[in-house]
Amino acid sequence: MATHRFDPNFTDNVINSMGPKTSPRLRQLMTGLIRHVHDFARENELTVDEWMEGVKLLNWAGQMSDDKRNEGQLVCDVIGLESLVDEITFTLADEAKDAPTATAILGPFFRADTPYRENGADIVVTKPSDGEMTFMHGRIMDFTTQKPLVGATVEVWQASTNGLYEQQDPVQTEFNLRGKFKTDADGRYYFYCLRPTPYPVPGDGPAGKLLDLMDRHPFRPAHIHIMATCEGYRPLTTQIFDRKDKYLDNDSVFAVKDSLVVDFVPREGDAQAGLELNYDVKLVADVPTNGV
Amino acid sequence: MATHRFDPNFTDNVINSMGPKTSPRLRQLMTGLIRHVHDFARENELTVDEWMEGVKLLNWAGQMSDDKRNEGQLVCDVIGLESLVDEITFTLADEAKDAPTATAILGPFFRADTPYRENGADIVVTKPSDGEMTFMHGRIMDFTTQKPLVGATVEVWQASTNGLYEQQDPVQTEFNLRGKFKTDADGRYYFYCLRPTPYPVPGDGPAGKLLDLMDRHPFRPAHIHIMATCEGYRPLTTQIFDRKDKYLDNDSVFAVKDSLVVDFVPREGDAQAGLELNYDVKLVADVPTNGV
Repeated sequence: MATHRFDPNFTDNVINSMGPKTSPRLRQLMTGLIRHVHDFARENELTVDEWMEGVKLLNWAGQMSDDKRNEGQLVCDVIGLESLVDEITFTLADEAKDAPTATAILGPFFRADTPYRENGADIVVTKPSDGEMTFMHGRIMDFTTQKPLVGATVEVWQASTNGLYEQQDPVQTEFNLRGKFKTDADGRYYFYCLRPTPYPVPGDGPAGKLLDLMDRHPFRPAHIHIMATCEGYRPLTTQIFDRKDKYLDNDSVFAVKDSLVVDFVPREGDAQAGLELNYDVKLVADVPTNGV
Repeated sequence: MATHRFDPNFTDNVINSMGPKTSPRLRQLMTGLIRHVHDFARENELTVDEWMEGVKLLNWAGQMSDDKRNEGQLVCDVIGLESLVDEITFTLADEAKDAPTATAILGPFFRADTPYRENGADIVVTKPSDGEMTFMHGRIMDFTTQKPLVGATVEVWQASTNGLYEQQDPVQTEFNLRGKFKTDADGRYYFYCLRPTPYPVPGDGPAGKLLDLMDRHPFRPAHIHIMATCEGYRPLTTQIFDRKDKYLDNDSVFAVKDSLVVDFVPREGDAQAGLELNYDVKLVADVPTNGV
């Protein structure tokens, strides 16, 4: 089977060193991971120096990461891994006949401590001079019954027109362009935000270095992040993309799906916003399952 | 070809996003890495939560790493990757008909700033009460001609009997159990050290956590690290292992090779040491090559 000229027992020895108390799922994952990593090294005759460059890059990612930045995640994103595991998770849900709104990756700029705001609020606290104000609204609904969900939470976050999220940018107020909203008695949420603009993923760390080495552009197409939650329903994480964006076909983190592309339309008679975006989110009831 | 039910074009899209200025070797490595990582995720239907656990583990490794500790390297070590790339590098040298002394992994406890000591010195500056003093000596020779190399450098490092290297242990003097020696006019080096003892790899980080999850012991068989260098010769990194060690067949980092197992023998008439170890190192002349 092995066509290489290295010790044919080495990988099995490593895998077989796992003891009887390893959980079945971890044994499966570590077996697969060890086999693939070893095959990668043998097939490409990875040298000690090349491997050490990889170790340095991964250590650097950890050293840049904190509660406001996750560079390890971003490294995965630029090689498509987060989008792939998102697709896998969504496909499994879809086969279980409970496909909700398509999902997309969380990305590294989510903040767990984002505050609630009132419906109708303007999340553009720090106003960029070149921003296009948008009134975003929609309903959160039960995927099966299509009934509106009252008191559900929709959380949104977006970058400003300079390409930075508030935690990357000393000029922006904390929690600028972020907010959590509770749906009203009709299942509606609504607020003012920016029409999103494309931006490059950060270039000052290992993800940016990898993009450079791979001769790739760092841009993400314009998008708004959405996370929707409601008691008794499965949480949903997604992103919606502006149909007019030029990076729609070559997102640097491979997150675009056709059903997540939306249209910003002109809005009349609102001094606060010249554009409008309607987006409904469908959630599926959370059926208890046996673990992961 | 693909037997899974996920987007069959996804991985090719990620690979094909590499631009024309990517170096051929990096393109090869990233292509192989992306294919294996994606195949691993699909074959095991890796979930978003499982992937995120992996990201956290890798970020944690970087956060624990500094100029005295390399936890990312240690994570690789416990899945056998450093030993595998060492074998690959050694096999390639062997096929080029210039196999020197067998190599072994550098490990995460090497320090580039280790000072020179005089031949005959005792590297056991902080003496453990349960240490067995050993007189270690040998020659550095040209692999082809078997002639001794004068003025070559042999660098050694070892853990103390408590299982800790000096940079891990506040009790030990800096550079305890480390030293660089220059070979004399006969190509000889000699010094006093400890008979090495088995020790566990550090359990306070992600490598230790992985070992726990895989229900594996953390012990390394007793060994002394050696790095030998000489102008005009290829540097050599290896480890020598005590034949009597009980972990010889199940090293937690998979570094043992038969040719690296050595015997500590009784030494007579030396008040400083009751054991002796003779070990010769053979180096190959460095022929200029065209890069890596």
